Amino acid sequence: MSDDSAQAVVAFGGGHGLHASLSALRLLVDDLTVDRLTAIVTVADNGGSSGRLRREFGVLPPGDLRMALAALCGSDRWGDTWAKVMQHRFAGDGEMRGHNLGNFLIVGLWELLGDHVEALDWVCRLLGAKGRVLPMALVPMDITAEVRGLDPAEPDRLTTVRGQVEVATTDGVIDSISLVPENPPAAPDALTAITEAEWIFIGPGSWFTSVIPHLLVPALRRALVTTDARIVVVLNLAEQAGETPGFGPSDHLAVLAAHAPDLKVHAVLADRSMEGLDELADTVEAYGARLVVDDVAVGDGTPRHDPERLAAAYARIMGEG
Amino acid sequence: MSDDSAQAVVAFGGGHGLHASLSALRLLVDDLTVDRLTAIVTVADNGGSSGRLRREFGVLPPGDLRMALAALCGSDRWGDTWAKVMQHRFAGDGEMRGHNLGNFLIVGLWELLGDHVEALDWVCRLLGAKGRVLPMALVPMDITAEVRGLDPAEPDRLTTVRGQVEVATTDGVIDSISLVPENPPAAPDALTAITEAEWIFIGPGSWFTSVIPHLLVPALRRALVTTDARIVVVLNLAEQAGETPGFGPSDHLAVLAAHAPDLKVHAVLADRSMEGLDELADTVEAYGARLVVDDVAVGDGTPRHDPERLAAAYARIMGEG
Repeated sequence: MSDDSAQAVVAFGGGHGLHASLSALRLLVDDLTVDRLTAIVTVADNGGSSGRLRREFGVLPPGDLRMALAALCGSDRWGDTWAKVMQHRFAGDGEMRGHNLGNFLIVGLWELLGDHVEALDWVCRLLGAKGRVLPMALVPMDITAEVRGLDPAEPDRLTTVRGQVEVATTDGVIDSISLVPENPPAAPDALTAITEAEWIFIGPGSWFTSVIPHLLVPALRRALVTTDARIVVVLNLAEQAGETPGFGPSDHLAVLAAHAPDLKVHAVLADRSMEGLDELADTVEAYGARLVVDDVAVGDGTPRHDPERLAAAYARIMGEG
Repeated sequence: MSDDSAQAVVAFGGGHGLHASLSALRLLVDDLTVDRLTAIVTVADNGGSSGRLRREFGVLPPGDLRMALAALCGSDRWGDTWAKVMQHRFAGDGEMRGHNLGNFLIVGLWELLGDHVEALDWVCRLLGAKGRVLPMALVPMDITAEVRGLDPAEPDRLTTVRGQVEVATTDGVIDSISLVPENPPAAPDALTAITEAEWIFIGPGSWFTSVIPHLLVPALRRALVTTDARIVVVLNLAEQAGETPGFGPSDHLAVLAAHAPDLKVHAVLADRSMEGLDELADTVEAYGARLVVDDVAVGDGTPRHDPERLAAAYARIMGEG
């Protein structure tokens, strides 16, 4: 594809799902299908290294940002080495245990420069990254969920569960989620990227804790419902213990629609191996979107997207418009 | 000075003294007086962030290496920013408190690459550094000192004190120091740099814990006594509480000579403001070296070397041969 037709793309998500999506999109930057790539990343993690740094310094949790940055690293030895440095996790049994070096680097840059976005741009430069990485909000967020079934005596009673880790591992069934604070500031550059994008990819990823949260940030939501960009929802390959037990692809989409009924989705991408594709087709049609079924899984039975297959699927969707 | 006459230089030391010397030498790299610059740095620290990381991971203490790397950073915004990132010290009151980001970066690279020197070269590349930074040994070292006067009842009895922090803050008078282990492996590239150097600058810095230790590493000592390089000893501007209370410049030189009697010193650089220069002249002459007295202090009464003045003095010494 020639440079003239290259597209501005925004990817929403967090964690391993966004890492997979960005690993696909960087291939499309390499072949000039995509020319401007922006990742907008959840900042609601309260577990692990991110949670510890967030509690110690009151900063945004850096982990999802770090993973997104590493996914976009340059293809040469320089980019590859610094991405590995970013992802390096300290072992041992002392105070560093379980911390990622890249988390330190991001937090140190935040402290030093006092500007979230400028600091992330410095990491991008270090990595020779093929895009920008922005936080979904400029303050640390908490996810709360209304969860059903936590009380055996009253199985229909809703209980509020707070914290990404707590929501992701709840024994109950998540009914809905919300954010604390409810109206966080968004990065102006994130809003601009959404407005100027031709394509926006939402998901895959932990549905309630990495994918839907973006849609609950009012400023992002306003930008998403007014942009001319075509929005593609990339479905997970499987249910996820804790968050989405028993959820089929149709349920994933229904939950997303319930949280953002005003969002106009252009296409929904599902893997050919998924069960429940017939039901999904009906849900997608009712949602006013186009269902795209393609081979995007690694294919070894694990619920992981293959970056090259995902890239090919993205390119086909963007080519067909 | 033209590039044809540019000189290969090695600087020995640690801590703030080496930082000052390297800040001077980088100016001489800029003006092409020096073309190959190698810092050889103490790795015996057992205090602060370095001591904690050394105890947690069994690695070389990174702090002195970090300071040397930061001193050599490129002169542009890129080099300046990454040097500040390296030197950034985490505040707060949690597990990160007092750790330097650059120490994490160095330790992470060591873990990832499994090679001390390759890892430090990666940091050099990150900084656009104007030289290389190598450790004085490839294993963590301990300094032990024979100290007089710790027992009021027997003021002449020698007591063994172990650890850089303990030696640097002893209440007694240091008689001599030694290293544990006694015969550590040195970096082959450090030996090559010494052999190929035209000039070697030893000091300034904490005399017993940052300057003399190098001379006690047998492999470095052998390279130092056989190299054709001219060796310049840069004296401290003042005594240092703990390590060298009551030490005049002549005492500094005498201690160095006692620890390395076979070292052939070409010149000794002292600041014009120092007391005891007459006595020093005699000691330097007895040592077979040339005394160079110049204005190298900041001049505000604090015992700090001014990088530009130090650079000018180094250039004059190198120009006179």
